[in-house]
Amino acid sequence: MSRFEKMRKESVPLITLSSDFGPGNIGCGAMEAAVFEICPEAKVIHWCHTTHGFDIKGGARNLEGVYKISVGFHVGVVDPGVGTKRRGIAIETKRGDFLIGPDNGLLRPAAEFLEGIVGAWELTHANYHRKNISPIFHGRDIFAPVAAHLANGVAPKELGPTIDVQTLVASPYPEATWKNGELECEVIHINENGSCFLNVRAEEFKKAIRFGKKVSYSTCYHMLFSKTFGEVPKGDPLILPDDFGRIELAINQGSFALAFGIKRGDKLLLKKG
Amino acid sequence: MSRFEKMRKESVPLITLSSDFGPGNIGCGAMEAAVFEICPEAKVIHWCHTTHGFDIKGGARNLEGVYKISVGFHVGVVDPGVGTKRRGIAIETKRGDFLIGPDNGLLRPAAEFLEGIVGAWELTHANYHRKNISPIFHGRDIFAPVAAHLANGVAPKELGPTIDVQTLVASPYPEATWKNGELECEVIHINENGSCFLNVRAEEFKKAIRFGKKVSYSTCYHMLFSKTFGEVPKGDPLILPDDFGRIELAINQGSFALAFGIKRGDKLLLKKG
Amino acid sequence: MSRFEKMRKESVPLITLSSDFGPGNIGCGAMEAAVFEICPEAKVIHWCHTTHGFDIKGGARNLEGVYKISVGFHVGVVDPGVGTKRRGIAIETKRGDFLIGPDNGLLRPAAEFLEGIVGAWELTHANYHRKNISPIFHGRDIFAPVAAHLANGVAPKELGPTIDVQTLVASPYPEATWKNGELECEVIHINENGSCFLNVRAEEFKKAIRFGKKVSYSTCYHMLFSKTFGEVPKGDPLILPDDFGRIELAINQGSFALAFGIKRGDKLLLKKG
Repeated sequence: MSRFEKMRKESVPLITLSSDFGPGNIGCGAMEAAVFEICPEAKVIHWCHTTHGFDIKGGARNLEGVYKISVGFHVGVVDPGVGTKRRGIAIETKRGDFLIGPDNGLLRPAAEFLEGIVGAWELTHANYHRKNISPIFHGRDIFAPVAAHLANGVAPKELGPTIDVQTLVASPYPEATWKNGELECEVIHINENGSCFLNVRAEEFKKAIRFGKKVSYSTCYHMLFSKTFGEVPKGDPLILPDDFGRIELAINQGSFALAFGIKRGDKLLLKKG
Repeated sequence: MSRFEKMRKESVPLITLSSDFGPGNIGCGAMEAAVFEICPEAKVIHWCHTTHGFDIKGGARNLEGVYKISVGFHVGVVDPGVGTKRRGIAIETKRGDFLIGPDNGLLRPAAEFLEGIVGAWELTHANYHRKNISPIFHGRDIFAPVAAHLANGVAPKELGPTIDVQTLVASPYPEATWKNGELECEVIHINENGSCFLNVRAEEFKKAIRFGKKVSYSTCYHMLFSKTFGEVPKGDPLILPDDFGRIELAINQGSFALAFGIKRGDKLLLKKG
Repeated sequence: MSRFEKMRKESVPLITLSSDFGPGNIGCGAMEAAVFEICPEAKVIHWCHTTHGFDIKGGARNLEGVYKISVGFHVGVVDPGVGTKRRGIAIETKRGDFLIGPDNGLLRPAAEFLEGIVGAWELTHANYHRKNISPIFHGRDIFAPVAAHLANGVAPKELGPTIDVQTLVASPYPEATWKNGELECEVIHINENGSCFLNVRAEEFKKAIRFGKKVSYSTCYHMLFSKTFGEVPKGDPLILPDDFGRIELAINQGSFALAFGIKRGDKLLLKKG
């Protein structure tokens, strides 16, 4: 019996819900209610509903963080193509989690953090959806119900045909790689404090640079690679691992984005030293 | 045994909470805690807390959507008259749900979506309230506790005297009706994207107009009656059923409210063609 | 067997989570998931996540309100010193609740509302923390896990060494006291409506002034000490007990803070009459 099968049989299944609906919106509660109809004993956690409308990059970055919690069924909804021909999908990951949502790249980075894709299925079998599906709200009518059925032990092959993983829409951001001591990277998310999150995994970054060494970007010369904000004076920029596995550019008690005029999606060039 | 009695006896009761407190506010958690004190096994869903302060129309429209989920006990709190002589009420609906909140019209549209009112009671019996009731927070001290007691199987007549339904405060919006190919309607809610929701039921509207036909409003000539946004080019206005049973005016990836200077409560005249 | 031990043995334990992360943020869900890993049967309530970033006063005031709900384990995270030498602590209160968070004063006012401190422990024993602790997110990796272990029945002395209560960081606000008919007090929180909450307990205030009497502040002469907003005309200032045990300055359907240019932390002088 796999770790995943064990979890399904022995304990309360965990279902997380993420979207761009905004916290407190009826869409969030409606997805939870759709789970409750089918798998009332599931533990539902509202993982993230603050993603900007239609921001697939930010949504993908927020969803990645589920690798920090228990194995579960993770619904992701940032879905500008809802009601068009884009596929609805479930992805099984090596860690044992399932990711459920639209095939628009949103689920791909989380799948990598969850140790990679084992299989993927298209959500075509209507007996695992709600009746009278809204063409504009598949989160409630398809994705949350599918997560609940999986939590009940439905085999993923029951959901619809297997998908060739090569045909899945790619991640909305590649992983940045070092070239000659330079790292060309992208700002995939900016939080309320103006900290900028990069398409750089902390584990990879630590292989290239040790804590206490310096990194430069544009006119930010020699930022300290730190473990926490307090290692630099208030108002100074720094670079550090965030709390969900990525590298973050920040100013201690300030806004990096504001100070350097950075927007989501900007490309940055980091240099050692 | 009625469907409702069956639900109460055999399964986890569902309680939803809606308010104008704003998401993350202590008021939301305090209502959930009040339920937990009395009916710890209830499933509590935070349905909607984004209604603007004191906006009974918007709150009523948000609450309507519970007809899309399982039978439950639905607490609604948009309550500018709290602490005055306005009544606290519980309404039993034909579908089997209960609505609990102030008698200010807030619960009426939801009651219609839940197939109509079976009975109503005034919440006067203090043994189903918390002790030391705050005169400014009946949501926590009366409405949530009453929902929890109902979920525990308390008969509604225990809550207080029966109310003559004719004396309940009316809905904050009537249902719009067609006259000579024209529909005078009202904007009962505008969401963050600027989509305008009308006092028009999708089911009724579909009886008058088929998908693919056109509707005009003011200088918005010939909007397509669509199933989803992608049926019109980006930037074009359209009219479509929303995901909770009403008709919505929207711009594909734009703001209808902004484009046409529409505010909550505005009256609009729609014409066929 | 104490009331607290009884609760732990016989019923579903209650854990509340409060922070300055903002509602819908992944940090909130991550703390809930950390609890779920350790104590899946706990009832988790998101008490308050709207505290302004790093606002220890506002966070302390929000946390105080838990005295209005059942005995539980209350996690509070407003933690500008995370990753520095500030201590992580658990406080046991006389009512039977535990407060868990940073030793920066955040938990002290709540402890007073919960009838005072019985004991305090420093959270040093790593077997009650998550593995690979983030130096910037102790809420997820230390505080929530500790709450879950306490909910499971772990004795607080297992968490780390006892703390001399005298060495705990003090409350971020003292309790205001009357002197010669004057009350020098502080604005510890301002809500979205512009109501100003004071470091004055409603119970204490009522000992000095009866409802219906008048209080003056600056140019607000003779504000009515009221039970609810509707006792004064729309637009008039008033003073009233809030719904969580403090005294509030408000304008009926207006903003006191805006009208009188008040900011968080301002000192005010109230006079009888």
